[in-house]
Amino acid sequence: MITLDPLFEPKSIAIVGASRNPGEIGYEVLKNVKNSFKGQIYPINPEVTEIENLTSYSSISNVEDPIDLAIILNKGKEVSSVLSECAKINVKVAIIVSSDFSEKERVKLNEDIKKLKKASKMRILGPSSMGVFHKDLDMLYLPKERLKRPSEGYISFITQSGGIGATLMDLAAGEGIGINKFIAVGKATDINEIELLQYFGMDMQTRCIIMYLESTQNGKELIEQAKNIVKNKPIIILKAGKEEQGLTAVEQHHGISSSTSQIYSAAFKQAGIIEAKTTDELFDFAKTLANQPILKNNKIGIITNAGGFGVLAADEASRLGLSLEHLNKDTIKLMKALPSHIKKENPLDLGGDANADTYQVALNAMLKEKDISGIICIALLQTPTLEERVITAIRESKLHGKPITVCITGSDYTKRLARRLESYGVPVYSTPEKAVRSLNVLLKYNNILKKFK
Amino acid sequence: MITLDPLFEPKSIAIVGASRNPGEIGYEVLKNVKNSFKGQIYPINPEVTEIENLTSYSSISNVEDPIDLAIILNKGKEVSSVLSECAKINVKVAIIVSSDFSEKERVKLNEDIKKLKKASKMRILGPSSMGVFHKDLDMLYLPKERLKRPSEGYISFITQSGGIGATLMDLAAGEGIGINKFIAVGKATDINEIELLQYFGMDMQTRCIIMYLESTQNGKELIEQAKNIVKNKPIIILKAGKEEQGLTAVEQHHGISSSTSQIYSAAFKQAGIIEAKTTDELFDFAKTLANQPILKNNKIGIITNAGGFGVLAADEASRLGLSLEHLNKDTIKLMKALPSHIKKENPLDLGGDANADTYQVALNAMLKEKDISGIICIALLQTPTLEERVITAIRESKLHGKPITVCITGSDYTKRLARRLESYGVPVYSTPEKAVRSLNVLLKYNNILKKFK
Repeated sequence: MITLDPLFEPKSIAIVGASRNPGEIGYEVLKNVKNSFKGQIYPINPEVTEIENLTSYSSISNVEDPIDLAIILNKGKEVSSVLSECAKINVKVAIIVSSDFSEKERVKLNEDIKKLKKASKMRILGPSSMGVFHKDLDMLYLPKERLKRPSEGYISFITQSGGIGATLMDLAAGEGIGINKFIAVGKATDINEIELLQYFGMDMQTRCIIMYLESTQNGKELIEQAKNIVKNKPIIILKAGKEEQGLTAVEQHHGISSSTSQIYSAAFKQAGIIEAKTTDELFDFAKTLANQPILKNNKIGIITNAGGFGVLAADEASRLGLSLEHLNKDTIKLMKALPSHIKKENPLDLGGDANADTYQVALNAMLKEKDISGIICIALLQTPTLEERVITAIRESKLHGKPITVCITGSDYTKRLARRLESYGVPVYSTPEKAVRSLNVLLKYNNILKKFK
Repeated sequence: MITLDPLFEPKSIAIVGASRNPGEIGYEVLKNVKNSFKGQIYPINPEVTEIENLTSYSSISNVEDPIDLAIILNKGKEVSSVLSECAKINVKVAIIVSSDFSEKERVKLNEDIKKLKKASKMRILGPSSMGVFHKDLDMLYLPKERLKRPSEGYISFITQSGGIGATLMDLAAGEGIGINKFIAVGKATDINEIELLQYFGMDMQTRCIIMYLESTQNGKELIEQAKNIVKNKPIIILKAGKEEQGLTAVEQHHGISSSTSQIYSAAFKQAGIIEAKTTDELFDFAKTLANQPILKNNKIGIITNAGGFGVLAADEASRLGLSLEHLNKDTIKLMKALPSHIKKENPLDLGGDANADTYQVALNAMLKEKDISGIICIALLQTPTLEERVITAIRESKLHGKPITVCITGSDYTKRLARRLESYGVPVYSTPEKAVRSLNVLLKYNNILKKFK
């Protein structure tokens, strides 16, 4: 069986159904592939001889060079014959982006694919797949003016809904969260979410795998694979269709029925998979898990220049079972450079007139405190006394090897600085509750590691 | 007793401790007041005769005209004598921004204020108050380059933490959420959160009151006042210090102890106050409550062009007890202009190639369906087929008098359109779950109205 390497790292790509007309999918895919991919590109369109300065072919069979990956954008009813052609010339992987099938056409396509799989080694992704995105291969048909592409990072993302996947990537891009590889499965007729999970499990560049899952045809296999993978990297799944009405909607959207909430949640727990309960949590958790060391135990410290946010963070910590340890004498000694009116307590409230130096002293002391394993750093950057170089102080805390999550709230000014911190791999959240929940997930993953290693 | 009108709508303002030096609070407050306030301004500073083209006075007693509002920025130890002077010349309201008191100085100030209140009619806000913000009076010392000011809207905000309050306003400003009046209480020596609640309860421009509360000295009074106010407008409270560790942090931050979570939650329920469980929920709920009609019953419709988001919304609706009704025949008839492959179901999945026209048809039909009382509209704006004028279609749905909340996810492009919708009073959320929870809060408020009217 052909591995999935040509899906993510093809040497040559044919775009079947490429178009010269901006706005059409056949043009948008070609343009985005051309701007990202460094290998050979073969547009296929029987009506033209050239598209965007690339020689266009009337049929994929006319291309004489070997083709690793074929992206199929044709009308639904044409897909079967294009697939046969692809198999004949030994294309390694075909991605069917097309999704305009009548019920009858869909049934026929499924049968044709079954036959093809017996006769050929070619692997198939889709139909209704949005394809692959990473820094060297962008085949999304969504225009860049509308959907921002994220920078390179350590999170890889498997989604059973192209729409959800793509918009969440856009959201992530806006917040400066890095993505390693993105893949939209579509209807899994051959390559499915489990094989992709395996692939990312072995992928050296992926440190955290996230998945938007509506249903799986082989829950047992998913669990078995996950159990192995979580020994090396965390898996986070957002499962849709958990509730009764959601299930009906899933059936409608996906054509197959998904199991109930409890079964999936129990299975995830058994497999060491971290469950995201909401859309927010998927990336909230991923950016911390992908960039921060584990939290060894439940003992944490909170640093803030806004007393109230310290209170809200302490509330959330209590709810999650995280413990705010009293600072020991050595730590308090390390804080002697702090103004005398600051109470050396945990949460440590540096006061409304805190500056970058007080943050640095506080962070250094807390990070050296042996009874504290992880830190929530809240910084109200709008206060005039707090210099921008506090970002450097927070960033450097990474050197201590203890996990840290940050809460920075606001609009333009603070978002700019928050994005800078994110680009250094320090996860930033807009509420204290999210910063605490995300630090807590590092403890969850530590417990998973203990259980499965 | 002097009402609070001069606090929000003074005719003249003295700024005691005004400064010529940019970066100092005395300068920032003066500058922001000068740029927003249309009445007379008197800077008070014994060392200069002019600041920012305004005549400066050596002492407030030297001002011959009547002063409605004095903003006191002096050093902590000077505050008592400034207050006496203010009372002597019949200042109506004094706001003590100063917060640098030693424990001894604080005790003395409290005693001095007690005496002053017996001898004078002057009202006092603070100490440690960040003051007031609205479109005609901006006395925040946080620079605009760091803290964006929100546009005018219908939400008024009482906060016991200036820092939290101000940064959340900055966040709101970035998302296009309008604020009517903002006030940071500080330590309540005279004017407290309850009197302010009353004031906003009667304020015609305020449609929704939100409060960040750490503790109250008179819970019974708070409940009694709230019971009256919620007949006319909703109150949302984010209570900090709910959990054990949070309580300790509150005591530290606020000097007085707050009660436990359960007591407050029960009291809020009794009073018809909506409790925000997280920082996010405070504004998430407020922007819907301030701008949308109530939800009459639990029957809702979901429209989407991303099947998966429809599933997640349906999941959340189920969890909250909202019901997705089947569409009746008349509604399905109204949808005859929709492409035939679209299943006329609820959630209504318009498909990845939906455009503004299909949204308009779908919205119109759903809004006319008698068994549907409110709508979640999910729009994946990144798809090339969906024109920007879908924003107009969604906006016009307000004319039907049924509540609507919207889910739009993404970065720059989608955020720009989302802000436009927000400016029309249509609340937009970045996740389907938040859109559903916020629509649900309109049902909660309907139940509160039924109970208290």
